[in-house]
Amino acid sequence: MPELRKDPIIQRWVIIAAERGQRPLDFKVETTVFDVNPKACPLCPNNEDRTPPEVFSIRLDGSKPDTPGWLVRVVPNKFPALKLDGELNRRGIGLFDMMNGIGAHEVVIETPEHSADWDTISAEQLQRIFVAYQVRLRVLGEDERFRYLLVFRNYGVQAGASLAHPHSQIIALPILPQLPKEKLLSARQYFLEKERCLFCDLIFQEQELQKRVVYESEHIIVLSPFAARFPYELHFFPKQHSHDFSQASADVLMDLAKVMKRVLTALKQLIGQHAYNLVLQNAPNPVPRPGRPDYWGTLPYDYHWHWEFLPRLTRVAGFEWGTGFYINPVAPEAAAEFLRETLTQIP
Amino acid sequence: MPELRKDPIIQRWVIIAAERGQRPLDFKVETTVFDVNPKACPLCPNNEDRTPPEVFSIRLDGSKPDTPGWLVRVVPNKFPALKLDGELNRRGIGLFDMMNGIGAHEVVIETPEHSADWDTISAEQLQRIFVAYQVRLRVLGEDERFRYLLVFRNYGVQAGASLAHPHSQIIALPILPQLPKEKLLSARQYFLEKERCLFCDLIFQEQELQKRVVYESEHIIVLSPFAARFPYELHFFPKQHSHDFSQASADVLMDLAKVMKRVLTALKQLIGQHAYNLVLQNAPNPVPRPGRPDYWGTLPYDYHWHWEFLPRLTRVAGFEWGTGFYINPVAPEAAAEFLRETLTQIP
Repeated sequence: MPELRKDPIIQRWVIIAAERGQRPLDFKVETTVFDVNPKACPLCPNNEDRTPPEVFSIRLDGSKPDTPGWLVRVVPNKFPALKLDGELNRRGIGLFDMMNGIGAHEVVIETPEHSADWDTISAEQLQRIFVAYQVRLRVLGEDERFRYLLVFRNYGVQAGASLAHPHSQIIALPILPQLPKEKLLSARQYFLEKERCLFCDLIFQEQELQKRVVYESEHIIVLSPFAARFPYELHFFPKQHSHDFSQASADVLMDLAKVMKRVLTALKQLIGQHAYNLVLQNAPNPVPRPGRPDYWGTLPYDYHWHWEFLPRLTRVAGFEWGTGFYINPVAPEAAAEFLRETLTQIP
Repeated sequence: MPELRKDPIIQRWVIIAAERGQRPLDFKVETTVFDVNPKACPLCPNNEDRTPPEVFSIRLDGSKPDTPGWLVRVVPNKFPALKLDGELNRRGIGLFDMMNGIGAHEVVIETPEHSADWDTISAEQLQRIFVAYQVRLRVLGEDERFRYLLVFRNYGVQAGASLAHPHSQIIALPILPQLPKEKLLSARQYFLEKERCLFCDLIFQEQELQKRVVYESEHIIVLSPFAARFPYELHFFPKQHSHDFSQASADVLMDLAKVMKRVLTALKQLIGQHAYNLVLQNAPNPVPRPGRPDYWGTLPYDYHWHWEFLPRLTRVAGFEWGTGFYINPVAPEAAAEFLRETLTQIP
């Protein structure tokens, strides 16, 4: 019997149709990584002049900006979805609301290596990538026009990536988007009722039930979420309550790096090379100041940051567009069990 | 300057990043229609035994059920996402809500022809397909367990279709999903304030502005929506207020058939063969009865049915998953203008 499940944080339902697994569902995974010649790759070392000048880099050798020698390099997106300069100019015409597309759009070049993924990158290098996110989140967070900062990573053409070289992106938005807003409102409401964090309670419940916990380390817990939209969707939480990823300690970052590398290695072993999206779900830009409109009540201490890992094995189709529902052909409990088994074989 | 726009019906923002059009965005359209040998196609005539027995068909020649001679044929999905028999058994464990996956999942086989699309099917045949939707919506609407009925169509592999033979699907759900609920709540709220239909007002405003109207016939208006998520997204509305597609008259259906055929022909001429999803946004299942919990206040007369046509030219990626925002690289006004030009060349 398929099951309808509601996400415990937001009002999103999914159909867990595990019996559909009997159907020849093409888990023949289709992943295309554009394989440009590194000489032509705009993100490779020695091609620094093909990107806008860097806004941050990690260099251990004292090399100069916009020259080789970097380990992680952050540059503005050459084709930004939003423009950095200008005023918002919020306005309306009748039923329509609009504003100028003000925001930031940066590219984090994650490694000088042209061919790599987070399972093959070293944990030390992954930690450096996280540090680059933290630095940019803090710098962009100072801009009073920005209300939400999103860090995300698209891997493979099927997940929307247009460049093969390992990279992620940061977008700063002048409004709080619907999805984070729903999560924040839900966490706020729960805290007001119970004086406890909704996400902390969720983690505790999953630790008690032991059905969907994929992995636990000192600082991190990996869950196969109860109402997963996608097969093998995974959520990575810090075990200690924290609303802001940009404040995570070096220890937490290194632990997260090791856990992500380990779990992604297991997943690739289990289902093969696959396209995926990875998104950071962080509290909104937390810079309330005297004179600045406080659009989120207080500091969103009741939020709990997490990463969502979304393998792109199924296609979004008419049913999803028409309802906001998702159909997931793999039960989250089965995904967790397969992954736990595979993880025991990872050294 | 890119623009942020809010959908006038729900709280969804999009970035209209028309300047990104300068980027070599691959409108090299990728559409794969599985091309099975018609002999192997489970939806072709003479293969009626490869589907579950039909629940409805349109036959002009007096032929018997589950034999050739049909013009449109409706069968239960062989691999249903939901099961028809059983109780809902709503239940919860701590933070988790769930219920049995009770519902209907039917396939509307739209024509005996193996290779066709809505631009090549005759208007008479398209009208027959709409009649089949109406009949099934009415029959499924009698089942008191069903709260929402969705009709949708996936064309091309990139849009989630797994069979080439022209077909659409109907899913009956035991709950009112989030997206229709948001639209309904918004329309209800607007009506309570103004005693006017939100969609009627939207149509009137667009007729006044004449920027995003793609086409108008006697009964139908086609809009390139102000906050379109996708390039060349189109919404088809009846000009006269009506909440329920299953009650549309034969005249309206024939007009809709002619308009859809015409507009889809123009679009294919403009951007080539492309994958798409098409979804009916109808009022929730309107069968309040004595003793039946009235979950939607009154009959949803304040709703206004419409079809959403969603070409799949861009990919949903991390940014969309992380925010619920969409980035659309083609301004809806430009899409409308291109289409209007192309439509003048269609006889």
